[in-house]
Amino acid sequence: MSRPLLGVLIEALRCLPGVGPKSAQRMAFHLLERDREGGRRLARVMAEAMDKIGRCRRCRTLSEQGDCALCTNPERNVGLLCVVENPSEVMAIEQATDYRGLYFVLGGRLSPLDGIGPRELGLEEFAARLAEGEVREVILAVNPTVEGAATVHYLAELARHHGVRATRIAQGVPVGGEIEYVDSGTLRHAFTGRHDV
Amino acid sequence: MSRPLLGVLIEALRCLPGVGPKSAQRMAFHLLERDREGGRRLARVMAEAMDKIGRCRRCRTLSEQGDCALCTNPERNVGLLCVVENPSEVMAIEQATDYRGLYFVLGGRLSPLDGIGPRELGLEEFAARLAEGEVREVILAVNPTVEGAATVHYLAELARHHGVRATRIAQGVPVGGEIEYVDSGTLRHAFTGRHDV
Repeated sequence: MSRPLLGVLIEALRCLPGVGPKSAQRMAFHLLERDREGGRRLARVMAEAMDKIGRCRRCRTLSEQGDCALCTNPERNVGLLCVVENPSEVMAIEQATDYRGLYFVLGGRLSPLDGIGPRELGLEEFAARLAEGEVREVILAVNPTVEGAATVHYLAELARHHGVRATRIAQGVPVGGEIEYVDSGTLRHAFTGRHDV
Repeated sequence: MSRPLLGVLIEALRCLPGVGPKSAQRMAFHLLERDREGGRRLARVMAEAMDKIGRCRRCRTLSEQGDCALCTNPERNVGLLCVVENPSEVMAIEQATDYRGLYFVLGGRLSPLDGIGPRELGLEEFAARLAEGEVREVILAVNPTVEGAATVHYLAELARHHGVRATRIAQGVPVGGEIEYVDSGTLRHAFTGRHDV
């Protein structure tokens, strides 16, 4: 007799991030007992998404088309280029800010020990983009880690080389955060980056 | 232009219990960027499970076959019948205890105001099962709620009518729990149900 399908489903659900054995069980029973239609729909959409969603040729974010909806939107400001590590950050910035420029997705950060160099991050395409001459400002929204800082430095050099202004997003106390509980590195940045009220 | 597939996937993931907008986003990006093979497999298994898993004719638990693996297992003790509300409880009992009898899944508890009566819980099949004469003890593992208590009472009456012993699982202080923090109803049950050491 083959393995019971219920067990196979519970096991398969564990490929989702943050889903352990107990949550996987709960999800499987929920779908089977209360929402088969939702489960069928999710299975259909998931299969389609895994096959059809690729990367935008121009900005390397996730996209069904060769050029994504942002890159082909004529209302976006082509003079601004925001560099991020992952497609999820494009979505976060789109949801939270009123930024109307374009994006470039690195897909990681420089980490020579892991074999991630300028080539893996598409920095040749990035340089070619700057060479086109349309971009006036590169906004570096790379995560503030050690490797992120190295990546920012490298990208800023590239921008300088092409005569393009490079900025990076502000580091400081998070909105709604308590100064008392903010880590010392962040607090130091917040003081260095102080500005007039 | 149709809605972007990424957004449709994020929306579809929210049919899973405990998955809000943020977790759904995280799951979608994780699958697309790091585990497409896992996503394809999950989609395939989920579609198959939604279509092929039905209910066991005999015990009403989830099963691909007309009779489930437990009901057809000749090593199970047919003299013991454990009554639970949901298939997930069958799995929990199988994983936690060394119970070797059979099960009967109600699919809910008596709740006349919601239109859930003896018929909806399959109590005709349950009575027929008792009438077969093989069952010697009915173990009532219905959740200890008000409606659960009414259900237990009804089932115990049915068992008595067929001359079958009815027991219910013990209520008391949970293992590893602190007496100080246990609710008063549970503590009262724990005292009533005390036994010799």
